[in-house]
Amino acid sequence: MSLSRPAVVLLSGGLDSYTAAAVARADGFRLFALTVRYGQRHTAELDAARAVARALGVERHLEIDVNLSLFGGSSLTTDAPVPKDRPPGDGGIPSTYVPARNTVLLALALAWAETLGATDIVIGVNAIDYSGYPDCRPEFIAAFEGLAALATAAGVSGRRLTIHAPLQSWTKADIITRGLELGLDYGLTHSCYDPDPSGRSCGRCDSCVLRAAGFAAVGVADPARGR
Amino acid sequence: MSLSRPAVVLLSGGLDSYTAAAVARADGFRLFALTVRYGQRHTAELDAARAVARALGVERHLEIDVNLSLFGGSSLTTDAPVPKDRPPGDGGIPSTYVPARNTVLLALALAWAETLGATDIVIGVNAIDYSGYPDCRPEFIAAFEGLAALATAAGVSGRRLTIHAPLQSWTKADIITRGLELGLDYGLTHSCYDPDPSGRSCGRCDSCVLRAAGFAAVGVADPARGR
Repeated sequence: MSLSRPAVVLLSGGLDSYTAAAVARADGFRLFALTVRYGQRHTAELDAARAVARALGVERHLEIDVNLSLFGGSSLTTDAPVPKDRPPGDGGIPSTYVPARNTVLLALALAWAETLGATDIVIGVNAIDYSGYPDCRPEFIAAFEGLAALATAAGVSGRRLTIHAPLQSWTKADIITRGLELGLDYGLTHSCYDPDPSGRSCGRCDSCVLRAAGFAAVGVADPARGR
Repeated sequence: MSLSRPAVVLLSGGLDSYTAAAVARADGFRLFALTVRYGQRHTAELDAARAVARALGVERHLEIDVNLSLFGGSSLTTDAPVPKDRPPGDGGIPSTYVPARNTVLLALALAWAETLGATDIVIGVNAIDYSGYPDCRPEFIAAFEGLAALATAAGVSGRRLTIHAPLQSWTKADIITRGLELGLDYGLTHSCYDPDPSGRSCGRCDSCVLRAAGFAAVGVADPARGR
């Protein structure tokens, strides 16, 4: 196991990043999990990230703060209302979009990867059952890989960084199916953008709706349901 | 003035970013200054950033924390010794390189630019009289511009972000000459990577050496000398 390669995994506490991390582990990577407290209102996901990191047996779990709510512009980081009951495939970019969030997350992962000597980063983005965020698209991920080759000392010395986005073209049902095959406990995860103060999911935001539809399509009960 | 366009300016407190901001102001931009406390040991530059922001009359100055010292890997963010008396043009990437720092800085500037509705970012990188950091090179800046077009809602709607790096191909003497023409007070700035506890510059790190050589080439005294 110690001969396997290290990878920095962005871990939010949701089911996508948990599954992406487990896929990377199954592919033989040693996991270095990075959770970013970016000022999200749904801090319940931070507790979930810790539980998921333990369940995955990651080699190290770092949490880093960068308060993107200073910039405003998103209902995930401000008091603006989170949209509810949006029809699927509504189009447009919803207010839950956090400007440049994935660029910031990948930049931080890149910083850690370089100090670890890792050339692999894992991110659970998905461009099928998702909310239409621009920084979840395959062309964004490819562009970041290109940037990383120029941004770092490792890149200068010819070590190419790979960004793994294994869920990129999977449906939410595909993601859950693969996770269950890998033995994941989705009861540990948190997806809701707008939980009540006790951490209970709203059931109506995009993230809750996509999650519920995924479990329904797979035909299994969500072990986190009702929380 | 209120009709002019907003630009996010990365302001470190050093003379390069001060000059880059002043060039942007002379070009008619309204300045939104962003200072990133990334765990640098030379916190004296943060006080300098505030003084410089005031002198520039920026519309707003935000400071944001992101503790890159969590990742280690640089003598600027750890207790590792800062190299002194390096010959100019030594080649190689010195230990003061902070992994992926400029990627992180530009990602944060991008986040703010998007919430401001700004399509311009200004950064004082320079690839002539510099320390050989990979993320100061023109190809890195160009790659980040390409990434930004894919990373943001603004990019999706066809608004192209421009990264201005006006000092890119200037010598340190060129930078100082232009700044003096613009009436800048370089006595406000701080460059040293390794000041003593009172904030006094060491005179021997790369940043001090490049600065001193720049003032010598212009033939003027450094107004911050001895501090």
